[in-house]
Amino acid sequence: MNPLVTQTLSTAQTVIEIAATGAFALSGVMEAARKRLDAVGIAVVAFLAAFGGGTLRDVLLDRRPFFWVANPWYVWALLALCVVAMLTLRARHFRVTERARQWPDALGLGLFAASGTQIALAAQMPSLVAVLMGVMTAVFGGVLRDIVCNEIPSAFRDHRPYAVCAFVGGWVLVAIDRVADLPTLALAVSALVTTLFRALAIRCNWTLPQWRTD
Amino acid sequence: MNPLVTQTLSTAQTVIEIAATGAFALSGVMEAARKRLDAVGIAVVAFLAAFGGGTLRDVLLDRRPFFWVANPWYVWALLALCVVAMLTLRARHFRVTERARQWPDALGLGLFAASGTQIALAAQMPSLVAVLMGVMTAVFGGVLRDIVCNEIPSAFRDHRPYAVCAFVGGWVLVAIDRVADLPTLALAVSALVTTLFRALAIRCNWTLPQWRTD
Amino acid sequence: MNPLVTQTLSTAQTVIEIAATGAFALSGVMEAARKRLDAVGIAVVAFLAAFGGGTLRDVLLDRRPFFWVANPWYVWALLALCVVAMLTLRARHFRVTERARQWPDALGLGLFAASGTQIALAAQMPSLVAVLMGVMTAVFGGVLRDIVCNEIPSAFRDHRPYAVCAFVGGWVLVAIDRVADLPTLALAVSALVTTLFRALAIRCNWTLPQWRTD
Repeated sequence: MNPLVTQTLSTAQTVIEIAATGAFALSGVMEAARKRLDAVGIAVVAFLAAFGGGTLRDVLLDRRPFFWVANPWYVWALLALCVVAMLTLRARHFRVTERARQWPDALGLGLFAASGTQIALAAQMPSLVAVLMGVMTAVFGGVLRDIVCNEIPSAFRDHRPYAVCAFVGGWVLVAIDRVADLPTLALAVSALVTTLFRALAIRCNWTLPQWRTD
Repeated sequence: MNPLVTQTLSTAQTVIEIAATGAFALSGVMEAARKRLDAVGIAVVAFLAAFGGGTLRDVLLDRRPFFWVANPWYVWALLALCVVAMLTLRARHFRVTERARQWPDALGLGLFAASGTQIALAAQMPSLVAVLMGVMTAVFGGVLRDIVCNEIPSAFRDHRPYAVCAFVGGWVLVAIDRVADLPTLALAVSALVTTLFRALAIRCNWTLPQWRTD
Repeated sequence: MNPLVTQTLSTAQTVIEIAATGAFALSGVMEAARKRLDAVGIAVVAFLAAFGGGTLRDVLLDRRPFFWVANPWYVWALLALCVVAMLTLRARHFRVTERARQWPDALGLGLFAASGTQIALAAQMPSLVAVLMGVMTAVFGGVLRDIVCNEIPSAFRDHRPYAVCAFVGGWVLVAIDRVADLPTLALAVSALVTTLFRALAIRCNWTLPQWRTD
């Protein structure tokens, strides 16, 4: 590809990565605050929400060092975010913050699912496993956050497409990877598909087909 | 051993493995349905119930690839089972399904505990640790299922012998392994002991000795 | 250092290690008993409380063998402790036991945080990550215990300094490690700082600054 395009995409990736990690961490801060955790609990839950998915993927793939070990300033930034949030956020801001989180969250869903799938493919995982690793990268931070906060994970019960968007986007990446050796393009297209699917699902209020158990 | 016997045992092992994995997955589907999870939650909980114990064992032993990475069609079969269950299972079938699960579940308890113990012994674990790894292989799928569904794991509180059966069967395997180099026989005898112990416990309604805390 | 001092410190370390592991296990036994778990559940929760933090650290650092695999008699001792506790402990003793646990628990917090930090530094972790690994070593056993017992981890919500003491002590170890190559001294001073901080916090009834969300 044109080097300028590659450069632009790489910058966009870094910006999205930071914004999305912040949005994920913020979801942890708010969930922990709702449960009246103390400062330690807030920091741990924010950490799990932001880095839990990628860390679990790396443990399963036996990859080291973790992202946040190679870049410890990410952890410093997370601690700073917790302090700032505790000093400025009030309960009445939660609804506004929740809405402001939707966009970076959808972008992060796309980017982390696509990059997780790509990392798993590079580790010789079969296609289905790679796609599931991508979904896990994007979704399991929130799952760990909810387990520690003693809730059934919202990703498993809110009946709106979230993990499903990442699953679809992951297959897009696998398909492009099969026909061409263009990793940057595959990442961008896959992330875009997931994000648009998620945005449409929110806008149109889609729900997953219900299982009527009775 | 006679090659015909070995062949028969190997076929029996594959059949039991598939039936038991299905029974474990089904326990996850039903638990998730009871908690009104959505389709994503049902698939994840079924996955944890079916593969969680063996995966956790492999992480602790640092073994790769996981079972379901080496055989990704197992994951496809699991997804198919979830779809079929969602299309056909109704709440009124749950009691029947629960009873139908008891036999493959007891067989799986025996087989997975025995093979888990054998794998851990092959990885040079001490006897006690190997037996505990076997128990974990068979039991921790259900434990992870219950944790995600926000329940205290039923294996830890129903006061009926379940993990205990696997613990006894594991020691049988260790004992045979010490006196003779007959892995197929050790696996079969150990699995049989665990399964019969579990079947007796269900039939006779045995309970673990109670701890009266007051 | 003087060999006699080194010898004394090493003996002290072993004594504290055993006492603290016992105190951690006992916290698991009592929590499991309060939740009316059966014998299997009590043993598992005691195991998680005693060995969960160090095991999780070793999984993240990709270190093998685990502590309790290299020394399986630790697991035998844990099983013995569970049996003794079930035969002798009654609910009315819990309050007394809780208070008797405070000292070995505070000593264990200091020792395990310091040794966890030292192990992580030896594995080339950056300072902040090493300190967090130390905190995790000392604190995550209790976190796993509470998650399995379906509670929000008490370390995250009781608003008294616990993980924070270990965090401070970890930085003391990092600081000494930077200026001098005296691992035994660094371990002792760091553990002492954490333990004294914790003891002061209990004695003076300190609490973490509250986040008023409304």
